[in-house]
Amino acid sequence: MVLDRVLVLPLLLSLLFLSSADGLVQDFCVADLSSQDTPAGYPCKPVSDVGYCDFVFSGLASPGNTSNLIKAAVTPAFVSQFPGVNGLGISAVRLDIAVGGVVPLHTHPGGSELVIVMQGTITAGTISSSNDVYVTQLKAGDTMVFPQGLLHFQINSGNSPVVAFVSFSSPSPGLQITAFALFGNDLPSEIVEGVTFLDDAEVKRLKKVLGGSG
Amino acid sequence: MVLDRVLVLPLLLSLLFLSSADGLVQDFCVADLSSQDTPAGYPCKPVSDVGYCDFVFSGLASPGNTSNLIKAAVTPAFVSQFPGVNGLGISAVRLDIAVGGVVPLHTHPGGSELVIVMQGTITAGTISSSNDVYVTQLKAGDTMVFPQGLLHFQINSGNSPVVAFVSFSSPSPGLQITAFALFGNDLPSEIVEGVTFLDDAEVKRLKKVLGGSG
Amino acid sequence: MVLDRVLVLPLLLSLLFLSSADGLVQDFCVADLSSQDTPAGYPCKPVSDVGYCDFVFSGLASPGNTSNLIKAAVTPAFVSQFPGVNGLGISAVRLDIAVGGVVPLHTHPGGSELVIVMQGTITAGTISSSNDVYVTQLKAGDTMVFPQGLLHFQINSGNSPVVAFVSFSSPSPGLQITAFALFGNDLPSEIVEGVTFLDDAEVKRLKKVLGGSG
Amino acid sequence: MVLDRVLVLPLLLSLLFLSSADGLVQDFCVADLSSQDTPAGYPCKPVSDVGYCDFVFSGLASPGNTSNLIKAAVTPAFVSQFPGVNGLGISAVRLDIAVGGVVPLHTHPGGSELVIVMQGTITAGTISSSNDVYVTQLKAGDTMVFPQGLLHFQINSGNSPVVAFVSFSSPSPGLQITAFALFGNDLPSEIVEGVTFLDDAEVKRLKKVLGGSG
Amino acid sequence: MVLDRVLVLPLLLSLLFLSSADGLVQDFCVADLSSQDTPAGYPCKPVSDVGYCDFVFSGLASPGNTSNLIKAAVTPAFVSQFPGVNGLGISAVRLDIAVGGVVPLHTHPGGSELVIVMQGTITAGTISSSNDVYVTQLKAGDTMVFPQGLLHFQINSGNSPVVAFVSFSSPSPGLQITAFALFGNDLPSEIVEGVTFLDDAEVKRLKKVLGGSG
Amino acid sequence: MVLDRVLVLPLLLSLLFLSSADGLVQDFCVADLSSQDTPAGYPCKPVSDVGYCDFVFSGLASPGNTSNLIKAAVTPAFVSQFPGVNGLGISAVRLDIAVGGVVPLHTHPGGSELVIVMQGTITAGTISSSNDVYVTQLKAGDTMVFPQGLLHFQINSGNSPVVAFVSFSSPSPGLQITAFALFGNDLPSEIVEGVTFLDDAEVKRLKKVLGGSG
Repeated sequence: MVLDRVLVLPLLLSLLFLSSADGLVQDFCVADLSSQDTPAGYPCKPVSDVGYCDFVFSGLASPGNTSNLIKAAVTPAFVSQFPGVNGLGISAVRLDIAVGGVVPLHTHPGGSELVIVMQGTITAGTISSSNDVYVTQLKAGDTMVFPQGLLHFQINSGNSPVVAFVSFSSPSPGLQITAFALFGNDLPSEIVEGVTFLDDAEVKRLKKVLGGSG
Repeated sequence: MVLDRVLVLPLLLSLLFLSSADGLVQDFCVADLSSQDTPAGYPCKPVSDVGYCDFVFSGLASPGNTSNLIKAAVTPAFVSQFPGVNGLGISAVRLDIAVGGVVPLHTHPGGSELVIVMQGTITAGTISSSNDVYVTQLKAGDTMVFPQGLLHFQINSGNSPVVAFVSFSSPSPGLQITAFALFGNDLPSEIVEGVTFLDDAEVKRLKKVLGGSG
Repeated sequence: MVLDRVLVLPLLLSLLFLSSADGLVQDFCVADLSSQDTPAGYPCKPVSDVGYCDFVFSGLASPGNTSNLIKAAVTPAFVSQFPGVNGLGISAVRLDIAVGGVVPLHTHPGGSELVIVMQGTITAGTISSSNDVYVTQLKAGDTMVFPQGLLHFQINSGNSPVVAFVSFSSPSPGLQITAFALFGNDLPSEIVEGVTFLDDAEVKRLKKVLGGSG
Repeated sequence: MVLDRVLVLPLLLSLLFLSSADGLVQDFCVADLSSQDTPAGYPCKPVSDVGYCDFVFSGLASPGNTSNLIKAAVTPAFVSQFPGVNGLGISAVRLDIAVGGVVPLHTHPGGSELVIVMQGTITAGTISSSNDVYVTQLKAGDTMVFPQGLLHFQINSGNSPVVAFVSFSSPSPGLQITAFALFGNDLPSEIVEGVTFLDDAEVKRLKKVLGGSG
Repeated sequence: MVLDRVLVLPLLLSLLFLSSADGLVQDFCVADLSSQDTPAGYPCKPVSDVGYCDFVFSGLASPGNTSNLIKAAVTPAFVSQFPGVNGLGISAVRLDIAVGGVVPLHTHPGGSELVIVMQGTITAGTISSSNDVYVTQLKAGDTMVFPQGLLHFQINSGNSPVVAFVSFSSPSPGLQITAFALFGNDLPSEIVEGVTFLDDAEVKRLKKVLGGSG
Repeated sequence: MVLDRVLVLPLLLSLLFLSSADGLVQDFCVADLSSQDTPAGYPCKPVSDVGYCDFVFSGLASPGNTSNLIKAAVTPAFVSQFPGVNGLGISAVRLDIAVGGVVPLHTHPGGSELVIVMQGTITAGTISSSNDVYVTQLKAGDTMVFPQGLLHFQINSGNSPVVAFVSFSSPSPGLQITAFALFGNDLPSEIVEGVTFLDDAEVKRLKKVLGGSG
């Protein structure tokens, strides 16, 4: 079927309804962060306002600042930073871990994680509901998956800085660092001790260190 | 339309195909626990073998034994105990907490939790990814919801035993007790310390108490 | 790794972006009932306005009023009453059934149900798409599951009041009582008769009793 | 980039791993009905055994036999008849309704329904959880949607046979006909009466007509 | 249990809370197209404004205009045209294909498709990720399923017009016609050639014909 | 609450049921690739056979061989290669694109894609259902998201090799390369021409080059 120009006008007219209106079909839903979030993600920016920029994020290009206590930085590309991932079931994070640094024990309540090591050596592990421990050492090029909601950690166990990229099965997977949840807020020490078996002195020491009270 | 018996035979015959064959439609999928689990749950027991018993579970009727260290018992009706919930997005647990007892800090990686207090007084709380603390006291008749994957706990804060029933948004929500994940296995002490900021003595004390090694 | 206070400030600063902004991560989505519902649930109340109260519901503590025709009361903790369950795939109901009372034949179009009997004796049953009947008697402590969308009922078959708690695999499972759907509205009698095979006199009697017209 | 034949061999070799192995990617999962069903559908027939026939179903071409009591026939193309729809979230049914015929009040516990009328005139309706009635007359070319799990019906309200095609949002939506669930099995009359408010004589009459006992 | 009118008032009062409020339960969510779309669909029109019309769509009754280049017309009943399907996981389309006409190669990124042929003869086919081809001829009454996201096409291979009805497993499945995506916009010819292996002359010819530039 | 060793035995016994049995809770479901796939993924390897190796994949460490026609290599870590991602909603791929190379126009029918550029410069783009083009140039550190099912491509538009890592929102997203689907199999030329508007000579040229017949 070879087309010529004269014939194509009716074609274009007949298909016009399929290509013009915002929202006729929903291929994507770039987050309008100024609207109220919903359980399925943010409402969609009008398609007429969407450009290629909405699908691109450059915030993972630069190393995070690891001049801190944990000698590590987590730079997120969750829906709040990268509205293009809204509703698409995916997001990313850059990990920088200086020598001696650590990403402390944590969970992502809302998604599974897949890490790819770019530079350096990581000792990474996860613990299951049955208390089984899965720990190993990862070098550049290695990939490890951490199932949704399970405790896991990453330690720079080498002699050079670690760079790794992480992706998640959700645009908003959450990040709950256990030590911060326990010691970085005003949850009363008595309760912390009761629910963790830690002794009073240790809880109070860490509360002081991590900025908690009570 | 008043029916009489003579006319009904052709009806029954014509509808026979809709009511006889196993698996014609899948109203439910009682777990065949002898088959391999899948990401969506266990394969289904043949409908011809299903009886009312498959939808009933009596294991939550009796109190769990709270003569233990935490003075608490968690009696599950997950898919492994109650095959009828397979594929239905729901399951349950009975909590018994003696005076002075506690359900230690934990998460359910695979589901949200709704607790209803039957007897006694609970101090319950959850902590968000943002380290916000939501703690309160619950008495008989009170209901509290704990969002999927977030750390939470229940303490008997009264003078009488607690009985509570818990339901989950999954037939297999998981249960990861933080202290057991940290101290009840062979995860090396050095790693535990590195990812939690706890000091060496405290980690080793709790490893000894909770049966861990390393 | 033992921390001291001096070192922790840079840590806190570096993690600030992970703990301050509303919506950075979505751990939960307490319903803003003043906004428009969506297929996935209500838009979220700002996290900064969320307190422990949002996760607690006390409306199931008191018995419902069973001084009515069915001698039963259904007290819901669906998302409309308990905004904290929004988006979490779970909700609850309290059943009170006086002696001689009944929860009439009904379905929940949007969720599976798990009932736990607290007091009394229930004759409960469900019917499958293949017209198989699963009926049994439940006593205190017994649990029964009713698969999504299937007809089921609960009858107080004992000599004392029944109290039961029910949970659902949805924050908004719906509740369609068959007799009310047939006789409690203005669906014309002729149609009711045509689609149920009931005779005219019986339909008109029940329309009168249950407040229907037509 | 114009290719020539000489260059293409390495290309084909390099891409071989992407096109040969069964299960490398799962584009579809034609049901192996001889395996055990799971909550997500049947296990997949090996891709190497799949042919175009697996995606085609001719069983809806012929009218169903309406020489029965309801003067109607429901011919399903659910996963049990049409294994190609397994896992794809869709299935279909052909409705034939003779003059004076009716598809009795029913629900699909597992899916929403969309009907398209081919011939004839249907009076169709659905009733919501709030007992609101949505009834109308449909003629050839009209489409109506019935939300998941809600009671609905179709009556031939014209003077010629009805042909309609129905699709569902599930490969196995279920079909629960209320009158058959009530009167077509051995659910005891006393229970039927208790949960529907119908009187004893009417229940017994319909049990006799629809083949039930008890 | 035979009811009489006097007794029913308290019943109705006690159940009032279950039948009056908008949004108490969500049986359906008719799209409010004037609100912002979300990843799960449009916000819901208030139930008090919903009538039977919202569940009915008559736009598929008339043949589409096939006086165009492809001698075919696709008339959609997606959520944008038929707000009642919002959130229900289903939608529909009418296909009219004149003699010699074709529905060009396309995908539906967001849903699987089930076609039922009403009149005429179609040569239809789909291609898998493994480049396997599944092509066959369909006549009136035949049904074919096209798995989500895979390339497929329909050609009128007979001597009379084709009418077919198509349903989808999504209210907004999308429709990406390959030739239009390649030649009907301003994607530079050089890029089109690089990513398809087509030669420059052919790309420029089709860009001209299909209204593209660059 | 300070624990001592003597007290812990009853605790361990009481919790034994929570930590020993395979399948008690499903934290993960490592694929047993020797079992039949299902719509939700492969059946699970017994937990007792799972080790840390199941969560690690080293196949992305080495560059793919780009000595081929497209001067590019796609190295997958889908569930078939990396069984640990089964059921977790995530997978990955390594892209190597030599100077002058290209990843041809393609879709992933079953998942959204997020690419992170490690080295080199990519011109990448996607086209929506509305034929809108979103093209841009990505350099090291840039991230771009491609919504599920939409056509997209990546071209090495720099002077050095490209390395990029891609993740998907599915363990088995599929990969359908348009040119291969059109020209790399036995789909008859006449059909290809009819559904794409390409002329006969061009179709036959590319069939010859890409190994197709017909």
